[in-house]
Amino acid sequence: MATEPGPPRPAKGARPNLKDVAARAGVSRATAARALGGYGYSSREVMERVSEAARELGYEVNRIARTMRSGKSDIIGFVCADISDAFFSSAMRGICDVARRQGSKVIVMNTDDQLAQEQEATRVLLSHEVDGIVITPVSVREHAHIDAVTDAGVPVVSLDRHLSDAGIDSVVADNEDGTAHAIGHLIARGHRRIAFLGSVQPEEPPSLRIGKLRSSVAGPSRPSLDRIRGYLRTLAGAGLPADRDLIALVPQGSAPERRLEAVAAVLALDDPPTALFTADSYMTKSAFSLLSELGVRVPEEMSLLGFDDLEWTTLVRPRISVVVQPTYDMGRTAAEQLFTKIAHPAPAGGGRGRRTVVPTRFLDRDSVGGSLLDKGTGP
Amino acid sequence: MATEPGPPRPAKGARPNLKDVAARAGVSRATAARALGGYGYSSREVMERVSEAARELGYEVNRIARTMRSGKSDIIGFVCADISDAFFSSAMRGICDVARRQGSKVIVMNTDDQLAQEQEATRVLLSHEVDGIVITPVSVREHAHIDAVTDAGVPVVSLDRHLSDAGIDSVVADNEDGTAHAIGHLIARGHRRIAFLGSVQPEEPPSLRIGKLRSSVAGPSRPSLDRIRGYLRTLAGAGLPADRDLIALVPQGSAPERRLEAVAAVLALDDPPTALFTADSYMTKSAFSLLSELGVRVPEEMSLLGFDDLEWTTLVRPRISVVVQPTYDMGRTAAEQLFTKIAHPAPAGGGRGRRTVVPTRFLDRDSVGGSLLDKGTGP
Repeated sequence: MATEPGPPRPAKGARPNLKDVAARAGVSRATAARALGGYGYSSREVMERVSEAARELGYEVNRIARTMRSGKSDIIGFVCADISDAFFSSAMRGICDVARRQGSKVIVMNTDDQLAQEQEATRVLLSHEVDGIVITPVSVREHAHIDAVTDAGVPVVSLDRHLSDAGIDSVVADNEDGTAHAIGHLIARGHRRIAFLGSVQPEEPPSLRIGKLRSSVAGPSRPSLDRIRGYLRTLAGAGLPADRDLIALVPQGSAPERRLEAVAAVLALDDPPTALFTADSYMTKSAFSLLSELGVRVPEEMSLLGFDDLEWTTLVRPRISVVVQPTYDMGRTAAEQLFTKIAHPAPAGGGRGRRTVVPTRFLDRDSVGGSLLDKGTGP
Repeated sequence: MATEPGPPRPAKGARPNLKDVAARAGVSRATAARALGGYGYSSREVMERVSEAARELGYEVNRIARTMRSGKSDIIGFVCADISDAFFSSAMRGICDVARRQGSKVIVMNTDDQLAQEQEATRVLLSHEVDGIVITPVSVREHAHIDAVTDAGVPVVSLDRHLSDAGIDSVVADNEDGTAHAIGHLIARGHRRIAFLGSVQPEEPPSLRIGKLRSSVAGPSRPSLDRIRGYLRTLAGAGLPADRDLIALVPQGSAPERRLEAVAAVLALDDPPTALFTADSYMTKSAFSLLSELGVRVPEEMSLLGFDDLEWTTLVRPRISVVVQPTYDMGRTAAEQLFTKIAHPAPAGGGRGRRTVVPTRFLDRDSVGGSLLDKGTGP
């Protein structure tokens, strides 16, 4: 005995969609969308018919319909150089934890520190109507694409870099003060010739002016440059001359060999340093590797002090003294500020961005010794 | 001279939304949505009026409207234990790179290996209408919430764990064979007493049956258990007895002290091992740390061989010999399979899931020596 065919049902296993609901309710897709999304006019009878069809099919009024109503997607973006880098994955965890409490989620986009990829990332996130973006900008000067995001009314918080001429809030570590403190520690241990080994953004190379008494770094505030500033400031404060030969800068993203060469060149100077300050974790790794390969004893023959704490720095011998930035907390703070801005949109064009400086900590381990070559003010 | 006020424009700085377009075109929001989204009926005149308003306001037909039409959100989810863990952040990069080529993006959700968080994550991702999910399931037994995802027509690929009784494809490392190979290497170097130090999921503890001639591990296929299987299989194959005292398993997520105690207990045995096989990177770190703290020379007094390659294993001395899983490639492969399923949906209920086994590699460095205590078949 044949039964009367009921209204259409989707094939088993397929997720019921708006079209299925509309077909079952006997209305157009647009009408079903209106009824479910709660916008525009729907008669009470149609609303009930559509709701019943949705219930029968197990169709949940989804985020997309709700977004059309609320204007919120409950998604934020995180644009970073490379999520597999420990700094970014740790910051990401902080961002995710805040987002979860806010009922939001995080889309990750990698830029490989390439401006074109970053521009693509912000465009894609905008088209997804994200509620806001945490970004570590490739360039602190070229930020028209970031301005376009804020112009569209989507809040942005910059992580780890400060866009000084854009009205964008930022969360950065105290790169200059943290470095100054570390260099001060080396000077207090009697070191007078301290090398600075770091990297710079190839598109935005710093202009260093090294004088006997006074030195300066022209260029914007970026972690790499602020660390050089902290170094130069502390030398000057202690009345020590800066020496251009002791400052080695390689382009960010260089091959490991390039960094090893830079370390080797500094070690091979006629008047070599007694201590190395490595301004990022890649350089710390290169310096440590080369020193062990050459059999240079740390800290007896060479002191080593790095910026950034990675797991390995406590597993090697000697354990490396480092300046630590609280990466998880930086991500968390950036996300908290972002959600505050999402909840309380500020009027557009509101002047300069706020800068939140997160303190670093100095961890004195075993890789810094007193200077044997101290000829100056030592004990 | 006053000019005639034009149709409404949104306040400067605000992103024009559907409502603005509708107001400018003088139609209802639903009509504007229909015209822009390309679904339902719109007269040609209305379509043109709405398009023009959108163009004037700089309103881009957004993803959300397009999603309503295409049924695709161009977002996938990645559900993992913790994005700040090196395994997951590296796999994430592989997933992101594939997604980018596919014009898609990745939302990350952390579970902290807690089932309730994983259930929440899949629910949230479903409500966002993601096109698919890559997941590292907390449990290989409790997967009703994952079945619910596939039942909704959303493809899932399991990463690093295989759900044997669910019809879900998986990408896993050859945990058993990789371990077998490593243990074979230790046996070839003359080791007869080889400890296995690993961790197990507290909710799904294995049932070990250790016999003089034959041993087995009851329980599902998970990396932690498959590595024990590889260990026992190789011992049996070499005619070596397994010794329950040489197998130390701590619950996953244990405090570091717990792992250090486990290593210490094995080292303190009356008949101690001559080699340690550490089945995950946390245990490798604990074993290495304790051996250096105790002044046990590696490999002269104790050999060490670990599963998983982390940066530090090449920076310490001796460099640690390890079994490497290609984490980036595992993420990439999982994402590629996911997008294949998104493009070519399989009929639901299609039996058992396909299992893709990615080969590990053995990196022989400096932490394995010949056994001095060998009394058996040595040279």
